[in-house]
Amino acid sequence: LPRNPNPVALPQPPIPDSCFPRVYLVGAGPGDPELLTLKALDVLGRADVVLHDDLVTPQVLAKVSPKASVFRVGKRCGPKRASQEEIHALMVAYARGGLRVVRLQGGDPVIFGRAGEEVRALREAGVDFEIVPGVTSPLGAAARAGIALTERGVASSVIFLTGHPRVHDPSGLAGSDLAWPSSIRPDTTVVIYMPGDDYALLAGGLSARGLDPETPCLIVSSASTACEQVHLSTVRELPRAPQLPSPKLLIVGQVVAPDRLRQREESAWAYLSTAV
Amino acid sequence: LPRNPNPVALPQPPIPDSCFPRVYLVGAGPGDPELLTLKALDVLGRADVVLHDDLVTPQVLAKVSPKASVFRVGKRCGPKRASQEEIHALMVAYARGGLRVVRLQGGDPVIFGRAGEEVRALREAGVDFEIVPGVTSPLGAAARAGIALTERGVASSVIFLTGHPRVHDPSGLAGSDLAWPSSIRPDTTVVIYMPGDDYALLAGGLSARGLDPETPCLIVSSASTACEQVHLSTVRELPRAPQLPSPKLLIVGQVVAPDRLRQREESAWAYLSTAV
Repeated sequence: LPRNPNPVALPQPPIPDSCFPRVYLVGAGPGDPELLTLKALDVLGRADVVLHDDLVTPQVLAKVSPKASVFRVGKRCGPKRASQEEIHALMVAYARGGLRVVRLQGGDPVIFGRAGEEVRALREAGVDFEIVPGVTSPLGAAARAGIALTERGVASSVIFLTGHPRVHDPSGLAGSDLAWPSSIRPDTTVVIYMPGDDYALLAGGLSARGLDPETPCLIVSSASTACEQVHLSTVRELPRAPQLPSPKLLIVGQVVAPDRLRQREESAWAYLSTAV
Repeated sequence: LPRNPNPVALPQPPIPDSCFPRVYLVGAGPGDPELLTLKALDVLGRADVVLHDDLVTPQVLAKVSPKASVFRVGKRCGPKRASQEEIHALMVAYARGGLRVVRLQGGDPVIFGRAGEEVRALREAGVDFEIVPGVTSPLGAAARAGIALTERGVASSVIFLTGHPRVHDPSGLAGSDLAWPSSIRPDTTVVIYMPGDDYALLAGGLSARGLDPETPCLIVSSASTACEQVHLSTVRELPRAPQLPSPKLLIVGQVVAPDRLRQREESAWAYLSTAV
């Protein structure tokens, strides 16, 4: 994987098995293939072409039909592979060629995915589409940690932000671009997707919105996978937290207080700080 | 369904097939059984006992092992069936009896479910548990509507609130209990789970936090199911919107602008207002 690294060379089209070409915008979930939906599994098994981003794990890609042409079109990490406009053009071209196209994104395509832009491009091209939702990554992270993101009397709302609002972010910097709310209630859980590595900036942003410096913060790397790593910190200590590998999430709030977190023997949880 | 309406009478325990009794807190997704995860399907197929809330659809319950005892312990609508403490006691008693217990909740158990309290009760009782995440309902609603909840340059964050933060809400009133942020950015998508029927109160709350009265609002009833109904409105017009049946979601923000919404022929979309 990827089975065909060059997304520009169109494969020889197989005979389409449907008169109604359609693009499926599919959520791959947080990484564990068991967290795919039944519908996603079905669509992957019938795909002619799959265009996937960098967050889709090899274990999920293993569920794709062996007859499908699989292209990696991610651009979050490493060299640029395909522009968003090229992805649109590929989806439209394959669909018009009568192929069943799957646009596969980590997590859910409608939360910090590209579904908004891709839906617009498909509508403008007159190509029918369907969105297949997925488990967005913080839900996989919370499940593994044994915590809820909301809890009566503890967390009454959840806000999702991202450090990577731009398609192309050559600096690799995040955090400064966050669409911070003007203030954050202490009974809100804040989840930052792709928080980047500037933890001091994030801690400053959280403090400036009114969060107590002792508010717990959990960094989760590769949520739900065998490579998952976590580090527990606080807003005050966050600048000194280790740089875990991407993809990452930062979960902030009393729901990640140490006494709520599942303590595990597994090596994936070895990062769990005992100092907090 | 429910196959056994009385959750207090313990069924005769079948011979346990595992030495490690465990409670699975499982997300049933928004309603469409095709949106169950592979893991949820597997757990449901091997359950001895299922305790489910009112939001779990009959189509999802049809996936439960025919050998399982299925109890409805919901309390959102209609007469009280089981208190939260009774649910805890049932989970613990069945698990200690060596049964494989599934606590099945609509959507995802960690977002406006009971996972926080239930995990605490299970940990205090020394009962091992696992959380199986699900597709939280707004993702199912957004997929069906053909929209993203975030979109570059349009919506950079999402906030989830609920109108039913309390386990017992005899008034049936919601909205007033919302954990409103102090202000809402125009580039934020607001999702209110269980918004209740006091739309004037909701519109007032949204306006008071700074949202333009012309901000689009989409009410979605029974997201992702064959019974799905939607109504498109604005913050200004919301008080005059129809009372769609529970369960409901309210999605507020530019992502539900009329030109983004999928226009459908299906009767489920007949509520789509043309006046907006």
